Amino acid sequence: MGKVMVVGIGPGDPENMTLRADRALRNCDVIVGYHVYVDLVRDRYPGKEFLTTPMTQEARRCELALELAREGKNVAMVCSGDSGIYGMAALVYELRGENPSPEVEVIPGLTAACSGAALLGAPLTHDFAVISLSDRLTSWETIEKRLEAAADADLSIALYNPASRGRPDYLSRACGILLRRLPEDRPCGIARNIGRAGESREILTLGQLRRAQVDMFCTVFIGNASTKVIGGELVTPRGYRHG
Amino acid sequence: MGKVMVVGIGPGDPENMTLRADRALRNCDVIVGYHVYVDLVRDRYPGKEFLTTPMTQEARRCELALELAREGKNVAMVCSGDSGIYGMAALVYELRGENPSPEVEVIPGLTAACSGAALLGAPLTHDFAVISLSDRLTSWETIEKRLEAAADADLSIALYNPASRGRPDYLSRACGILLRRLPEDRPCGIARNIGRAGESREILTLGQLRRAQVDMFCTVFIGNASTKVIGGELVTPRGYRHG
Repeated sequence: MGKVMVVGIGPGDPENMTLRADRALRNCDVIVGYHVYVDLVRDRYPGKEFLTTPMTQEARRCELALELAREGKNVAMVCSGDSGIYGMAALVYELRGENPSPEVEVIPGLTAACSGAALLGAPLTHDFAVISLSDRLTSWETIEKRLEAAADADLSIALYNPASRGRPDYLSRACGILLRRLPEDRPCGIARNIGRAGESREILTLGQLRRAQVDMFCTVFIGNASTKVIGGELVTPRGYRHG
Repeated sequence: MGKVMVVGIGPGDPENMTLRADRALRNCDVIVGYHVYVDLVRDRYPGKEFLTTPMTQEARRCELALELAREGKNVAMVCSGDSGIYGMAALVYELRGENPSPEVEVIPGLTAACSGAALLGAPLTHDFAVISLSDRLTSWETIEKRLEAAADADLSIALYNPASRGRPDYLSRACGILLRRLPEDRPCGIARNIGRAGESREILTLGQLRRAQVDMFCTVFIGNASTKVIGGELVTPRGYRHG
């Protein structure tokens, strides 16, 4: 019996994966994943078997990995960012069910909250919420409630999936909700194409963010009440200076 | 002029750092940090200059790194987990001030929300909040409000700093607040000594968590309304099976 390793490869460039993830990909027999993520690592691991499935075939991809492990192969399923944060790890466990075989190992990676924050400065130094604006698997009402709760509790916020072709205005709607509670000049940031060609960052106010252009390769950050722009960086102090 | 790299080394074992962090530590002149974190990497980078400061000397440590960079050295300041999440990156930017010199580069690392979740299964597959129970730099009233907001909005929660010698009962107090809103049987988990000797995990209910023993090397996870224990793993489904 082989095993399934659910590997977070971090954002884009293989430089952003951990030594443990790199070792897992070097030692496995098969690398499975959405073709965009498999293509990010293909050149680095020559001689492996590569299997890809389309974006909406998540369950099929996990079943495939489990089947290959039952046939004796050591399978690495690659996920962008962290394999546990909006990743495939939970679905692999769900599909495996109550019998804990084949073995599953979740190998975490840098999620966009961490890598995007580093690109913008240090906006998540204090308590924060991570919220996806995709309503493919969550109702908009739930998303709205979470945005309101985070704003009311003065949590910094990392927004995943701020827009896609089918929902170009979701970030604007989210900003509208936040602006009922937070000031127009609240410092915010957009991290684009983290770790990939075209990586860039933009620091702006919440009022400006409402009209900003974003796509599915953006991660958006909303500061808390203490967040400032210092030396061109988006910074949420933790308070050590006065601690 | 040298630069300051604020490097998240992930949890414990250097295997958990990224290739980029490893390269930064290989290429720097000086490694600065709290002695416990410096000791984790000391053997891996022979020939470097190592400088350590005590735990409560965070500002002194950052000033030292900036001074060394001004003297022309390339400095890596090591932080456990991610350098931006409850790490030193914000303080370095604060102390550097409005003049963006010397150059500062934040190199993110695996934060305990990611690495602890992977150890327990996949409890953070959906929206979540990260909240520290340390009231050294935050009022308990604020912490309480954030716990309430996260519970009301059905966010999964990762609790950092659930206890220390000076506040052994804080996790119990936090669970008491959560239990006013969440059921006794809500699945939870404790990740202990992630990536270090003595690494272990415990899956339990919120009712049991209230009486659990934790220390400063623990990260605690509270599931959302969908979180289940499946095959011995703590799993928050994202909904792909029905998506």
